[in-house]
Amino acid sequence: MNSQYPSALLENAVNEFAKLPGIGRKTALRLVLHLLRQEDSQVEEFAQALVTLKQDVKYCRNCHNISDSEVCGICSDKSRDASTLCVVENIREVMAIENTTQFKGLYHVLGGIISPIDGIGPSDLQITGLEERVKQGGVKEVILALSATMEGDTTNFYIFRKLHPYDVKVSIIARGVAVGDEIEYADEITLGRSILNRTPFDESYKLK
Amino acid sequence: MNSQYPSALLENAVNEFAKLPGIGRKTALRLVLHLLRQEDSQVEEFAQALVTLKQDVKYCRNCHNISDSEVCGICSDKSRDASTLCVVENIREVMAIENTTQFKGLYHVLGGIISPIDGIGPSDLQITGLEERVKQGGVKEVILALSATMEGDTTNFYIFRKLHPYDVKVSIIARGVAVGDEIEYADEITLGRSILNRTPFDESYKLK
Ligand SMILES: [Zn+2]
Ligand SMILES: [Zn+2]
Repeated sequence: MNSQYPSALLENAVNEFAKLPGIGRKTALRLVLHLLRQEDSQVEEFAQALVTLKQDVKYCRNCHNISDSEVCGICSDKSRDASTLCVVENIREVMAIENTTQFKGLYHVLGGIISPIDGIGPSDLQITGLEERVKQGGVKEVILALSATMEGDTTNFYIFRKLHPYDVKVSIIARGVAVGDEIEYADEITLGRSILNRTPFDESYKLK
Repeated sequence: MNSQYPSALLENAVNEFAKLPGIGRKTALRLVLHLLRQEDSQVEEFAQALVTLKQDVKYCRNCHNISDSEVCGICSDKSRDASTLCVVENIREVMAIENTTQFKGLYHVLGGIISPIDGIGPSDLQITGLEERVKQGGVKEVILALSATMEGDTTNFYIFRKLHPYDVKVSIIARGVAVGDEIEYADEITLGRSILNRTPFDESYKLK
């Protein structure tokens, strides 16, 4: 046999799994063999769930959070404070902050952070959309809740400058989260407290 | 929102991933969001690879290894020694032993080991098929290469008794592998050596 695998179909499935982040070839093989032991219908449901999600997924036209409808459940919730926007990198941070139950405003999901090394610039992110929301009025405060990393800080400054012309307060969540840590891995209490203790953001802010 | 997830489609995909062994809900979400960032075609290829494998997979009619044809590449390789069968739990062990390049015989894949706690008995495994291969003649030696666990040892004894009426040598791979360790995680050198140093198996054998 030329290949390490006894079956080209098996190798193909392992290759696909191994493309996922954090999944090595050994783990990929273990997952594929697990699926092989399941019923056909179970494997089809697994595959269909992914294809359906990818085909039918919507992003909220206001905050760009993943949504099953044009406007997401958070944006369409009238009990929430539409004058406060929390800027986050991705949907995982929306979920993490929602879990703290400390934030009652709306979100703005950038879809990433500025990262020259990964070729991600401001135009790849939903920053113009954020500026539009502020320009339309009604937003009193924008809370920056990005990761406490160099990339997060670069993005914070970029957004701060973009919003400077407008009459809006820009604050940043308290750095209770250790420098270098990513928001999504912070525990709920720390993350909740850092939202409550947010401080005004200006040019003098330094990543300590 | 009642659900932790902003989208039922997303939640469904996360649920499917989280059914896989060793994949928690946080990892499942990370994998699903990764797939969401890929092209539609990439997600479809991932899904299709799994469905195709599950639908079209064959098992070698001789050794029960996964195969793309009726008889696998190892069994149909005339340069291999058909008089020596290596009994393994699963296809992962076939791949691990093939990687050592120390074994030139054929395999017999049981599809598991006897495990009363998991409700797996001899009739759930390809043991009758092994007996048939030996009964047909031509097999001089059966090498037991199961995990060095209680379940592996139970299966070793069961097979040993089943093959006792036949004129065949039953040996067991040297226990260079630490007791309690699983074969598939052994390094190639240890595993290769333990195949070369296999010893005869009889009733007095004890898991040390
Ligand atoms: Zn929204
Ligand atoms: Zn075969």
